[in-house]
Amino acid sequence: MNNGALGIFDSGVGGLTVVRAVQELLPQESIVYLGDTARVPYGSKSPETIRRFSDEDVRHLLRHDVKAIVVACNTATAHALPQLQQQYRVPIVGVIEAGVESVLSDPHCQRVGIIATRGTIASHAYQHALALRRTGLRIIEQPTPLLVPLVEENWLNHAATKLILQSYLTPMIEKGIDTLLLACTHYPLLVPVLQEILGSGVRIVDSATTCAEHLRRELTRLDLLAERDSAGTLEIGLTDLSDQFEELAGRFLHRVPPRISRVEL
Amino acid sequence: MNNGALGIFDSGVGGLTVVRAVQELLPQESIVYLGDTARVPYGSKSPETIRRFSDEDVRHLLRHDVKAIVVACNTATAHALPQLQQQYRVPIVGVIEAGVESVLSDPHCQRVGIIATRGTIASHAYQHALALRRTGLRIIEQPTPLLVPLVEENWLNHAATKLILQSYLTPMIEKGIDTLLLACTHYPLLVPVLQEILGSGVRIVDSATTCAEHLRRELTRLDLLAERDSAGTLEIGLTDLSDQFEELAGRFLHRVPPRISRVEL
Repeated sequence: MNNGALGIFDSGVGGLTVVRAVQELLPQESIVYLGDTARVPYGSKSPETIRRFSDEDVRHLLRHDVKAIVVACNTATAHALPQLQQQYRVPIVGVIEAGVESVLSDPHCQRVGIIATRGTIASHAYQHALALRRTGLRIIEQPTPLLVPLVEENWLNHAATKLILQSYLTPMIEKGIDTLLLACTHYPLLVPVLQEILGSGVRIVDSATTCAEHLRRELTRLDLLAERDSAGTLEIGLTDLSDQFEELAGRFLHRVPPRISRVEL
Repeated sequence: MNNGALGIFDSGVGGLTVVRAVQELLPQESIVYLGDTARVPYGSKSPETIRRFSDEDVRHLLRHDVKAIVVACNTATAHALPQLQQQYRVPIVGVIEAGVESVLSDPHCQRVGIIATRGTIASHAYQHALALRRTGLRIIEQPTPLLVPLVEENWLNHAATKLILQSYLTPMIEKGIDTLLLACTHYPLLVPVLQEILGSGVRIVDSATTCAEHLRRELTRLDLLAERDSAGTLEIGLTDLSDQFEELAGRFLHRVPPRISRVEL
């Protein structure tokens, strides 16, 4: 047992979908969240820059004495997680392992579509992790860089969003995918429109929910869970504060966020 | 006369549309360009953060002994230019003054639409500058945050782009605008599709071209023009380097860019 806080970071506020999933599954856990909104997005930037930013994010969370860290950003997980795990002694969990486990939990899954930022797709991190665990899987990757701006604008049901999703997804629908992996923490908000386009025959796996389950297993294994009767708190720090980020935070959390402070890295 | 280099900065590579316009008009001028690609975009961030970033950008250019600086970013001009002009002795020119002059060069202009990032629109900098110079102008502002991602993806003619532009522009078309001001250095690439939607009766003013003309007047006034027979050079420094930024740089410049180096601020 350990009542210390969890540290969770993302390039922006998208990682609050992970926070929401963790709070639902582990309400006793306190969370210190860091969103690097001054430098968001990470998804279009180089691996070297993403590693440097992620390292600064981890250092910030360590100054808050967190007991474990969740990298709630697919691009940062893809490019920086191995280095971070090597460099720091605190347990650090990413979103990729969890997503991969969830995809493979269906023994009949054969054709997997993956949508993500350009950076995550370019890393091929999901493709490698899936191929390592199950041979013969057909994997179809598609960078979908316009989805983060569309989600941030809340154009979840706009005709243009559907048109853009159709452009992105048609090639994988034609290849008969049975599973679509949402490899970006912004995408869970698009699940209804995605399911409408894909039809009910395609399973959607989102990295936020699966990450919370993976985190519970890890915390249990390491005996780091907080006591059941404690009440978890949430502190949100952003490197840039604006009305838009506050409004977005509420949408990702599905409730009015607690007071948000601006932090320096 | 002064053969020193001009410093030009932007949050990313969009400011290269200004570089292109300056090179066409003033081929004798050498240019040191800085794109803050590690922290791009500025358009969605807070005024305070934009001022801090812009200050660091100017300091970087001053270390290259530039004779004058162009803020080739509308959001940075809107939020940071007055402070920068007060703080530094080097002449600093933004994109707003030039765009405003160009709009008002048509004495019959009465209804002006302005499209820009959320940050530029929220500053109302264009609206104030226009209203100060001509009373009775009807100004219709529209934040268009999805246009930068669409231009960066090169979806200039995609059906979704037209749909999004129609969503943004229909209210101003219905209000009978006679002029549309493109208040973001990414937007000149959208001129053909914009003109198609607006029809030939609406004049489009782009901030890149008008900024180059304004700069020539300022350099002439301050006797800072380079000698006519000198051959201008171009150095491009970006705070993050990636294949996508290099490819984008070529599209904004309309030619293969010179060698690009990564710089630290």
